[in-house]
Amino acid sequence: MPAIETIISPALFHLYEEGLEQKNVVVIDILRATTTICVAFANGAREILPVAKPEEAAAMQQMGWIAAAERMGETVSGFDLGNSPQDYTRERVAGQKIALTTTNGTRALQMCSTAKHVWAGSFLNLQTLCDRLLTENNDLLLFCAGWKDKFNLEDTLFAGAVALVLRDRFTITDDATLAAMDLYEKARTALPEYLQKASHDIRFNSLHIESDLEACLKINTLNVLPEFKNGTIQNGQHA
Amino acid sequence: MPAIETIISPALFHLYEEGLEQKNVVVIDILRATTTICVAFANGAREILPVAKPEEAAAMQQMGWIAAAERMGETVSGFDLGNSPQDYTRERVAGQKIALTTTNGTRALQMCSTAKHVWAGSFLNLQTLCDRLLTENNDLLLFCAGWKDKFNLEDTLFAGAVALVLRDRFTITDDATLAAMDLYEKARTALPEYLQKASHDIRFNSLHIESDLEACLKINTLNVLPEFKNGTIQNGQHA
Repeated sequence: MPAIETIISPALFHLYEEGLEQKNVVVIDILRATTTICVAFANGAREILPVAKPEEAAAMQQMGWIAAAERMGETVSGFDLGNSPQDYTRERVAGQKIALTTTNGTRALQMCSTAKHVWAGSFLNLQTLCDRLLTENNDLLLFCAGWKDKFNLEDTLFAGAVALVLRDRFTITDDATLAAMDLYEKARTALPEYLQKASHDIRFNSLHIESDLEACLKINTLNVLPEFKNGTIQNGQHA
Repeated sequence: MPAIETIISPALFHLYEEGLEQKNVVVIDILRATTTICVAFANGAREILPVAKPEEAAAMQQMGWIAAAERMGETVSGFDLGNSPQDYTRERVAGQKIALTTTNGTRALQMCSTAKHVWAGSFLNLQTLCDRLLTENNDLLLFCAGWKDKFNLEDTLFAGAVALVLRDRFTITDDATLAAMDLYEKARTALPEYLQKASHDIRFNSLHIESDLEACLKINTLNVLPEFKNGTIQNGQHA
């Protein structure tokens, strides 16, 4: 059976790179990049180009793209959108191409670009993502974008949620994945409350994302499967 | 109140280095370096010098030190001792000075040598360690030695055990520490069984440390407090 490993920080990614082109990767940035990407496709976005710097997004804006840039939780001044899923309404994004740069998530996508498949995972498309993963026979990396290279609970919890769905079809002997599964089993019945106790005061408040927290923790509300391929993200699933 | 943060891998240590000289650090390598260090002092060792390479331990052997070297779980050929706590008997180590090199633990000790205090923690000296930590007013880093820079369960569980003892006297808003506490609460009533399910097959078996596992998970059996200071480790607690 193929194996699952969980990368709890981008700073550990190099430990898992061997044979990357034969592995599938799920990039996880629950608060908020990969959640926002799922919402954008659900509301009809055509394509999302992850870029490293706000200037790159701004350059795309000249060519008719929507430019979205977030740093430290805030929309960068002069950009059309930030990183809040609630801003990616059908009115704003249907039929549009979006150039997006965020603090943690877009960087993680670029780090694993040579993998066999790279998907964006969020609680919103958990089942759609897992349905596809269950058809795959390659080793799987659950890649948590983390917070400035530190461990964070919300990404790890999602890795645990995926592993729990897949565990009968994959070998799981990786300590990080086992820990993630146990943490998700503890948290699953009250995810928002569990995360409120986390780095709430120092991180969530400073990011002004309290109102996004609930939106980012809805489970199985969207039938989308964003795939990062040839440098850009498209929706591989159409309802 | 001072704060606790948990470093789940040496590869993340650089994220916590700012102000290190004002922080206390507990180095955690449950399987097996910090456990073995505790056992050695309990059995009368005078001093333990952590060295990076087997050649350095061999050089100390010429000067009457016991030379201990472990790589990949095995005693390095030609050395007096490896890294199994069961080998550090009173007969072998009482009154002796020991030069020790291990895969993960001694490296972690050296990384944090400029901290205010650096102690070695294990389940065996949990309460003695926490009694001392409760008298300190500096921020605390729980530094897991990990396994080749990857997350491991046993070190993280011990970090959770320490944080649970200290939580009324320290601020804990760090996600890694919160996760460690929840994992320890789940595992505490059956630690050996919990760790058997972990990377058992691929890591414990290959290290031939099954017989050490039980010895490394005894709780509060030793009244020792190994402190790393001026490049060497001495016992700061005498029963």
